[in-house]
Amino acid sequence: MFEQITILGSGLLGASLAMSIHHAKIAQSITIWARRKETVDLCSSKTWCQHGEENLERSVIGSNLVIICTPVETIGGIARQIAPYLEKGTLVTDVGSVKNQICLDCEEAMKSSEGFFIGSHPMAGSEKSGMDFASKELVNGKSCIITPMKDAPVNYIQKLEEFWKALKMIVFRFSPAEHDRAAAYFSHLPHLLASCLSRHLDTQDPNWKKISGNGLKDTTRIAEGDPLLWQQIFQMNKKEILTSIAGWEKSLEEIKELLKGENKNELHNYLKIGSNFRKDLDK
Amino acid sequence: MFEQITILGSGLLGASLAMSIHHAKIAQSITIWARRKETVDLCSSKTWCQHGEENLERSVIGSNLVIICTPVETIGGIARQIAPYLEKGTLVTDVGSVKNQICLDCEEAMKSSEGFFIGSHPMAGSEKSGMDFASKELVNGKSCIITPMKDAPVNYIQKLEEFWKALKMIVFRFSPAEHDRAAAYFSHLPHLLASCLSRHLDTQDPNWKKISGNGLKDTTRIAEGDPLLWQQIFQMNKKEILTSIAGWEKSLEEIKELLKGENKNELHNYLKIGSNFRKDLDK
Repeated sequence: MFEQITILGSGLLGASLAMSIHHAKIAQSITIWARRKETVDLCSSKTWCQHGEENLERSVIGSNLVIICTPVETIGGIARQIAPYLEKGTLVTDVGSVKNQICLDCEEAMKSSEGFFIGSHPMAGSEKSGMDFASKELVNGKSCIITPMKDAPVNYIQKLEEFWKALKMIVFRFSPAEHDRAAAYFSHLPHLLASCLSRHLDTQDPNWKKISGNGLKDTTRIAEGDPLLWQQIFQMNKKEILTSIAGWEKSLEEIKELLKGENKNELHNYLKIGSNFRKDLDK
Repeated sequence: MFEQITILGSGLLGASLAMSIHHAKIAQSITIWARRKETVDLCSSKTWCQHGEENLERSVIGSNLVIICTPVETIGGIARQIAPYLEKGTLVTDVGSVKNQICLDCEEAMKSSEGFFIGSHPMAGSEKSGMDFASKELVNGKSCIITPMKDAPVNYIQKLEEFWKALKMIVFRFSPAEHDRAAAYFSHLPHLLASCLSRHLDTQDPNWKKISGNGLKDTTRIAEGDPLLWQQIFQMNKKEILTSIAGWEKSLEEIKELLKGENKNELHNYLKIGSNFRKDLDK
């Protein structure tokens, strides 16, 4: 499917993708760029990395597909840096959880290059970060949102879709702006609430932790996620996230009123809607 | 350890306890009371139930330990109903997620009886309910809070502790009032936030569900829990829960301000505190 794929960044997602690509046999050669020499050496020792590279520009030369797997704040800058070194027809994508700003920056960067950028967001995170937790199964069966701009050529869009599908992902298309609105509600808000709950419980009597079960653990699991990555995601999508919080606060006010009142049926009904919504998520 | 144990109610927790007690061989005979004839017959067909009983009063006769495993609103009434039929020295406990009102009601009920009540709260729920999801492993390794009143005789407290420990639970003691304050923060608030998030996302574009991953699923899992059980728990502990919401809202305001501002370090630090708190929960 590809002669050479370059993965920029060897964290949880970068390394997991290399493993999946290797397993699915869709590239003759995988190059991985990492910032630190020790990481490059570690990657080079793996079966799923044919070439570890410390030099960013050199790492993309000769590749047909470049996947930027670095923290969201760095993606635009990396796109600008690699742009002059891309072969004709190279497809560039990323795995950032925010898309609007990244797509604008990366498409701007590609104007002076032979490559073409389309954003991706594979919905396959974990509260654990780093190569140690990487797995070829991480993306298997998960959703991947691709966010082509209106004028993106069909052949590039198809190539990107085929790539994610070859890794057994379920591919959906959103505009970058709609992705960010939807992600604010369905991904960033849940993370923010989990972080906020963990932050708040940290101020309470530590002895009370004894009264915590799987419910609390599930509800706060994602709060363990890398604080630096999430600080960047929150900052980059803050407008949409603040809107989603404001909307959500109305539902909080509603349940507070129901608690204060004595109408058990209405409270029951509120919880039933939430319960049914959650059941549907597993379908 | 016990000649006869009676379990009142055969839902997720009641049936799971019967399985655990049978497996741990700590009772010569297990009696289960259920409201519906079909459920009684179903229980009677199981190896972990020696005697299924439709009559509440009859079910407790001759038992050394009675465990009330019914919805929280019904526990006080059941205690009053069984009180006159208890043998001398029978220990009565429950599994309710709220303790203050239940302990007051049940201890009052036991005044006119030969039995003695001490509240329990095994922290072993699930978003699934009913006997179909019961398992002898449900309580294994989990925490169990017992809430003896100040004047509770030591022999009863010890017997109750030994019982839960025999099922491999880790036992802690709280006063009923402190249990309810702690549960508001560490159990009921997480559930309420998950329900509120599910309820709110239900009002959003269904197409946006495509942008949801394991993070959302974990964060909202407990919202699937039986709405009727949770409506009762929320109502019964509403004073403490409303206090916990008010406290939590301050942490929400804090992160909103950090998002609006540009101080990345402070936002990073906020998320780091939450992340560390969550890591500690797994220790």
